[in-house]
Amino acid sequence: MQRLIKLKEPIPATGQGKRGSHIYRVAAEIMCHKGYGATSMNDIAEAAGLTKAGIYHYIRGKEDLLFEIMKYAMDNVERDIIAPAMEVADAEERLRAIVECHTRSLIGGVGAVTIVLEEMTALTPAHRRLITARKRAYLNFIRQTLQQLAREGKLRDVNPTTGAFGLLGMILWISRWYRRDGKITPQETLDDYLEMTMNALLKTAKKSRR
Amino acid sequence: MQRLIKLKEPIPATGQGKRGSHIYRVAAEIMCHKGYGATSMNDIAEAAGLTKAGIYHYIRGKEDLLFEIMKYAMDNVERDIIAPAMEVADAEERLRAIVECHTRSLIGGVGAVTIVLEEMTALTPAHRRLITARKRAYLNFIRQTLQQLAREGKLRDVNPTTGAFGLLGMILWISRWYRRDGKITPQETLDDYLEMTMNALLKTAKKSRR
Repeated sequence: MQRLIKLKEPIPATGQGKRGSHIYRVAAEIMCHKGYGATSMNDIAEAAGLTKAGIYHYIRGKEDLLFEIMKYAMDNVERDIIAPAMEVADAEERLRAIVECHTRSLIGGVGAVTIVLEEMTALTPAHRRLITARKRAYLNFIRQTLQQLAREGKLRDVNPTTGAFGLLGMILWISRWYRRDGKITPQETLDDYLEMTMNALLKTAKKSRR
Repeated sequence: MQRLIKLKEPIPATGQGKRGSHIYRVAAEIMCHKGYGATSMNDIAEAAGLTKAGIYHYIRGKEDLLFEIMKYAMDNVERDIIAPAMEVADAEERLRAIVECHTRSLIGGVGAVTIVLEEMTALTPAHRRLITARKRAYLNFIRQTLQQLAREGKLRDVNPTTGAFGLLGMILWISRWYRRDGKITPQETLDDYLEMTMNALLKTAKKSRR
């Protein structure tokens, strides 16, 4: 069996812990609302309840903050999706774990952080390489799971790369449309996403729990 | 049967015709590459092979250009996806037409234009309302197709709204990963997307043509 990607560290703690993660989430919300280019460090300090001097205690500048938010986002992906899914030996169950963990994470509040992950062009080249490598590792993890399913005769007749991108697109889009105060509940969203993704990819998906 | 959305005009011609559409595509490519905030009118003029005075013959300023690109993108959606799909009475075949037309349009070169459609926060409120209404009309068109499939007993047990967003996410993501010079051909991409989307949504999808 092909070896799965190993994370270098178990669960990396980012930035300044809880305080850091609060600032990252608040900053991501504002960047989504105003656009990255139009957001100032002042806007972020104000929303985070810090003075401008206070926020510079945490962050050097806007590009640095963007990079920290992206690292935080990828830490979340590695801790909340890849790490638990990697524990699952059965490929079909692993795929289900990926969909479930990623969907839960998006409806649980990292939507804005996820949208900010698209602002790759604003990073310095060195920072961009680091984030690209971590995104690529996640894509490869999904692709290897689909390749395993193909070897087991369970994958539909689709290219595992196309399948991995299709799956990611469907899930990541949640951050664009899902509203916590909307009519569709978290459980319904999760059930529907499991139903759609597993059937999109598997010849005969086991019925989800509901 | 629920009435489908009617387009107000048959096929609206945008901007200054072919010359306009060339500028929109070039401008969208640069905005994707540099980020909207970091792109100047100079950058765009240079890439389009126009003087700065020349580009102002076509466009008043950057926000106006962004709005024109988005109108152009939505013109494409209405002309190349909604209009042909609306001709298809059978809901399953209509869904297939939506997926096929949208996928073809993305791999055919409007990828950058599609990514720029996400820059909603940079629009003036009045422009944002106009674009949001046209996006919403497309979503509703897909949702009504899924609702019809639900009435016919063909839709999987998923909320048609969630299904419409899931489908859109999967398809729109093509603009982020698909490379014309990559290993995966347009035909493979289309086949795989039809296979995934139809099986994601339909209890028993007819086999695609291949």
